[in-house]
Amino acid sequence: MPPPTTDLARRLASTESVLTEDARFGFDELQLAFRNRGMLLEALGYDITPTGMHFLLTHFDVPQIDAGKWRLDVGGLFAQKFALPLAELRKLPQKTLTVTMECAGNGRALLNPRPVGQPWINEAVSTARWTGVPLATLLRRAGLRPTASEIVFWGADSGIERGDEHTYARSLKVADAMREEVLLALDMNGAPLEPQHGAPLRLIVPGWYGMASVKWIRRIEAVERPFEGHQQAHNYHYRQTPDAPGVPVTHIRVRALIQPPGIADFVSRARVLDAGRVRLFGRAWSGAGVPVTHVDVAINGEWRPAELAVQVGGYAWRAWSCEWDAQPGEYQLSCRATDAHGEIQPLEQWWNRSGMGNNRVQKVAVLVR
Amino acid sequence: MPPPTTDLARRLASTESVLTEDARFGFDELQLAFRNRGMLLEALGYDITPTGMHFLLTHFDVPQIDAGKWRLDVGGLFAQKFALPLAELRKLPQKTLTVTMECAGNGRALLNPRPVGQPWINEAVSTARWTGVPLATLLRRAGLRPTASEIVFWGADSGIERGDEHTYARSLKVADAMREEVLLALDMNGAPLEPQHGAPLRLIVPGWYGMASVKWIRRIEAVERPFEGHQQAHNYHYRQTPDAPGVPVTHIRVRALIQPPGIADFVSRARVLDAGRVRLFGRAWSGAGVPVTHVDVAINGEWRPAELAVQVGGYAWRAWSCEWDAQPGEYQLSCRATDAHGEIQPLEQWWNRSGMGNNRVQKVAVLVR
Repeated sequence: MPPPTTDLARRLASTESVLTEDARFGFDELQLAFRNRGMLLEALGYDITPTGMHFLLTHFDVPQIDAGKWRLDVGGLFAQKFALPLAELRKLPQKTLTVTMECAGNGRALLNPRPVGQPWINEAVSTARWTGVPLATLLRRAGLRPTASEIVFWGADSGIERGDEHTYARSLKVADAMREEVLLALDMNGAPLEPQHGAPLRLIVPGWYGMASVKWIRRIEAVERPFEGHQQAHNYHYRQTPDAPGVPVTHIRVRALIQPPGIADFVSRARVLDAGRVRLFGRAWSGAGVPVTHVDVAINGEWRPAELAVQVGGYAWRAWSCEWDAQPGEYQLSCRATDAHGEIQPLEQWWNRSGMGNNRVQKVAVLVR
Repeated sequence: MPPPTTDLARRLASTESVLTEDARFGFDELQLAFRNRGMLLEALGYDITPTGMHFLLTHFDVPQIDAGKWRLDVGGLFAQKFALPLAELRKLPQKTLTVTMECAGNGRALLNPRPVGQPWINEAVSTARWTGVPLATLLRRAGLRPTASEIVFWGADSGIERGDEHTYARSLKVADAMREEVLLALDMNGAPLEPQHGAPLRLIVPGWYGMASVKWIRRIEAVERPFEGHQQAHNYHYRQTPDAPGVPVTHIRVRALIQPPGIADFVSRARVLDAGRVRLFGRAWSGAGVPVTHVDVAINGEWRPAELAVQVGGYAWRAWSCEWDAQPGEYQLSCRATDAHGEIQPLEQWWNRSGMGNNRVQKVAVLVR
């Protein structure tokens, strides 16, 4: 390693553990960071994120459900109301989709001022193969009535959020619920769902932020009027002021991430790279099934285009790479994706009160030696 | 919910997200909290922790290893030196053990002053069923020479820690390495190891803190003199001053945890419970295969004995439970385990420079309504 002449090099060479001067996160945020798991960024190397490395956001407690006793309750504005055991659901035709899922709050910890909540940095994204029953199949079998405007999905998890006690539930408008890619998923990456991913049954809404993919579904209800539950009508809105009605959060906004090159420093996660030709690698994605069309990479602010690989699936991320002849020095790396709708990641933060949908470009500091 | 008359009740009733006044964790610590995953405390409800809920501590990056090309290199003071492909290892006799593993740094974030490092609260413990080849089988086949004093286990992960660049490696004295419960594990909970848990091969040293259970093993080496690698000779020591030689961290110290009762508040993780009879539940464990013999539970400082269930295995935790007639009010719950050696958890912190082995009793705040 070179002699420590800069801040980055000094931190890398430090043999002492000291409290950082910029300490600013609260105990509540630390607890949330432990519970809610980001994907390790080196896992950008996998087309399909290994199950145990998939990011996780759990509002309350993961419920421990006896799958043998569990029933899916289908009710409300249907011609038929019924309760389906798991074995019956498994008999229906299944479909498998590769889906990149991202938490709507990804990037929140980097906002200034920072909304308190799950303090994601950049890592709340992953890709999995979900297998299950197309939701439309079930809705058709149950005979959805024309008076229904929304389908509500009730989870088995309850708790308190911002002073409001409730069961986690979200709705989809009928047109969105009938889309062919929306699944009632039983399996993830070829195995039954693990408890923390929604066992025995979860919704998967490809192209939407993760809050729509309700876990531990217990009841599906067709209703006439828009659902007003906390997680639908209050949380997950873009708002600038507390009393604004806000705009509901729906599709994933375009984003790219770099797999951090070189080796890591344990405490700071700073990166050290040997000089020479290196292939920078990462993934890019956008919501609503819109493909990513460009990724640009910046090395100390100089942008260059990256090469794009084939997309893993219509709702999945796309690998990109870019050659770099790295010379000794300190660098800041960034990447920036553009999708087929012409949406491009912002260079500055896009602030809103709950810190939702912040797709500002990632910055990775690298010391080349 | 009762009217907000106390701090806890006020926090639960808060509709606003505000920066907590006691903000004190640095960005580095937040990053570490994201990478290194605790077990969700509600998972204390499972005898065997679901694979994706098992705690994880990764010093550097999780290496992406091609299992088809991987070989276990066996060298040093052996009569035979060889490189074994995975298929050959799978042909050797296998053994399955249920093991409770804990990170040596569990509880670090609660220390005062706080050593900077992975800021675990209480959640760095889990139990899994590990299947693999007893290490002694391999050492005997290779013909361990009598001049060997230690066996060194080299991982595939390299990085920088406290200014020192190295590959993660740890050693065991020959007598410890030959113990029948030490495994070269290929499977976890009945499936091949996932990358983050050490695929394709990891060491499992039951009864020891997790640092001994080296992941991503690439080479096993028998040596004459004590191994002086960073993670063996510098890190993982109990020390009061930076220059003290210190005492190596080895066995897990006795500890108990409560599965937090009632429902959770999303941001603060505070608990709310309905008044009435409730069965408090948790797990207790100790290292070196020493069984837990007592667990006591405190409700606002009044201690009472808990009932112990049968231990899941010789190196696994033991469930405990205790009836509580919960009346409205605010409570602090604690539990405290004692093992067959008479070791008991301290009520006050047991401070050391790196924040290792801190098994102070857990405190859970509960509002009964």
